[in-house]
Amino acid sequence: MQLSQVYAPVKQDLIKVERQLKSVCQVDFPRLAELLNYTLSGGKGIRPALTLLSGKLHHYDLERLLPMATAVELMHTSTLVHDDAIDDSPLRRGRPTINRLWGEDRAVLLGDYLFAKAGEFAAATGNLRVIRLFAQTLQIISSGELAQTFDAFKLEQTRDHYLERISGKTASLFSLATESGAILSQAPEESIEILKEYGYNLGVAFQVVDDLLDFTGTEKEMGKPIGSDLAQGTLTLPAMLLLESYPKNNPVAELFKNRNMPEAEKQERIKRAIELVRNSPIAKQCHEVAKEYCAKACRRLKLLPDSPSRQALEDLTDLVISRKR
Amino acid sequence: MQLSQVYAPVKQDLIKVERQLKSVCQVDFPRLAELLNYTLSGGKGIRPALTLLSGKLHHYDLERLLPMATAVELMHTSTLVHDDAIDDSPLRRGRPTINRLWGEDRAVLLGDYLFAKAGEFAAATGNLRVIRLFAQTLQIISSGELAQTFDAFKLEQTRDHYLERISGKTASLFSLATESGAILSQAPEESIEILKEYGYNLGVAFQVVDDLLDFTGTEKEMGKPIGSDLAQGTLTLPAMLLLESYPKNNPVAELFKNRNMPEAEKQERIKRAIELVRNSPIAKQCHEVAKEYCAKACRRLKLLPDSPSRQALEDLTDLVISRKR
Repeated sequence: MQLSQVYAPVKQDLIKVERQLKSVCQVDFPRLAELLNYTLSGGKGIRPALTLLSGKLHHYDLERLLPMATAVELMHTSTLVHDDAIDDSPLRRGRPTINRLWGEDRAVLLGDYLFAKAGEFAAATGNLRVIRLFAQTLQIISSGELAQTFDAFKLEQTRDHYLERISGKTASLFSLATESGAILSQAPEESIEILKEYGYNLGVAFQVVDDLLDFTGTEKEMGKPIGSDLAQGTLTLPAMLLLESYPKNNPVAELFKNRNMPEAEKQERIKRAIELVRNSPIAKQCHEVAKEYCAKACRRLKLLPDSPSRQALEDLTDLVISRKR
Repeated sequence: MQLSQVYAPVKQDLIKVERQLKSVCQVDFPRLAELLNYTLSGGKGIRPALTLLSGKLHHYDLERLLPMATAVELMHTSTLVHDDAIDDSPLRRGRPTINRLWGEDRAVLLGDYLFAKAGEFAAATGNLRVIRLFAQTLQIISSGELAQTFDAFKLEQTRDHYLERISGKTASLFSLATESGAILSQAPEESIEILKEYGYNLGVAFQVVDDLLDFTGTEKEMGKPIGSDLAQGTLTLPAMLLLESYPKNNPVAELFKNRNMPEAEKQERIKRAIELVRNSPIAKQCHEVAKEYCAKACRRLKLLPDSPSRQALEDLTDLVISRKR
């Protein structure tokens, strides 16, 4: 099964989201238009799909759901643009990043613009609860990212610490996507809670797999360099498991204890860590953790109305586990 | 007359804004709390004062005006944090910048957090029109800043171009402050328009004076290095007038045409430009331009109800002209 099949119940409306994103690029200032066109293409569209699918389970109100679906995708893009600038990442979605092509300064300002545009779309829902959630989510994301900078190159981190970090940086936006979809379709409070929980747990699973793919994926599939978390000093689940499994001569420990080692030595450690993860049960263990969160995500879905959209949300959890990019 | 005297009609409520800003610093994450405490102090408070004074002219509704006044100050602070990060500025309000003390990456994330917090306060007004304006203003500011990066070190810029740039980066937020104050106090549309126009023109005057003080001020008074616009390649009104008045051996032209000159030579050009501005009628000419905008700002104020707050708005224009910091 592919993403496009899972999206089937909202396929037509996802095209409308695409159209909204295209309209965002139509600005009078040609340099800005160029930056927007470059950056607003090539996403997987999973977050807007979550908003629309969640909305489909109750009173589907496209007039309010469409701006919100657009808002979550714009917010996602803006965080990517800022993250890449901060990490000095060279590649995203298989192409050079904004910071590489236009410089870090412009990446920061473009991200600001995208945040603001996202805010305008959120405001267009006319729903104050959703607008408040939107603003709060951006606080959670940015403070999560901030926490990550303070945790960089620290070896002593608990699993809870890791989960808290990825909750902030990824799960919060997934749960905004589903919760807002539920609120805007006038779902009863219990359903809102269920869909929020679904989004949150799916987001955790998504990020666990993402962190694994930074070891087991390929640059071609991922569209970005492999091993970049280690290079940034970000301790993710696979790296934690690696530290536990190989207490001696551990490449992660070596790298984190001596972060200023020459680039070639750094790369050697990263390469060794990747090989160790690939040739160990760690990938399987990470998948198990992600599956647990997917199971949590689905646990209460059955309480919602049976429909192709509910099925799609369930199917999505399988795709999140099996994805290669 | 001093700022504190002009603020008299809303003095008590500005203290409440201060308290709201303090409450923003109370977060569970100690490193973030530290950053917030550091950055949310020492502002002149002109933008929140504008919101409250504008609100005083009609149905003063503190419950809605207070979050908006807080939102504009937070948005202002977030743009300063990002600007300083982008410009690699060492000083702000007489103290090292966030980027200097904690690094550019954290400055970007802190700015994002502040934007989001500002958005939450804007949402707390419960007024969709104001929320939309808020989001649009951030787009105007960030695209204005973006335009500035593309204009850097360009000598061929018209006066209109300059005005457009400062409208985006400064006047837009001033006009958000006054317009939102008017909207939230249920002012009639004509009054909203008058206060918006006031804020816009005052903002232009404010920025013209700011740009002049970058030549004629002192680091001690300004709390930031003098000559930083030239160092960044930003062509402001005093620099434009300098180019017009001294077509030969012009230090601005030399600097902009050879932006990669050694630092010592760069500093020599900046020093020479500052001296030329100080010993010429340029300061007076800039003040004339600022005064014109202040006159524009006040032109239709008389149509609003006569009150100490209206008088305060008028008095503020004098202070904007005569300010030394």
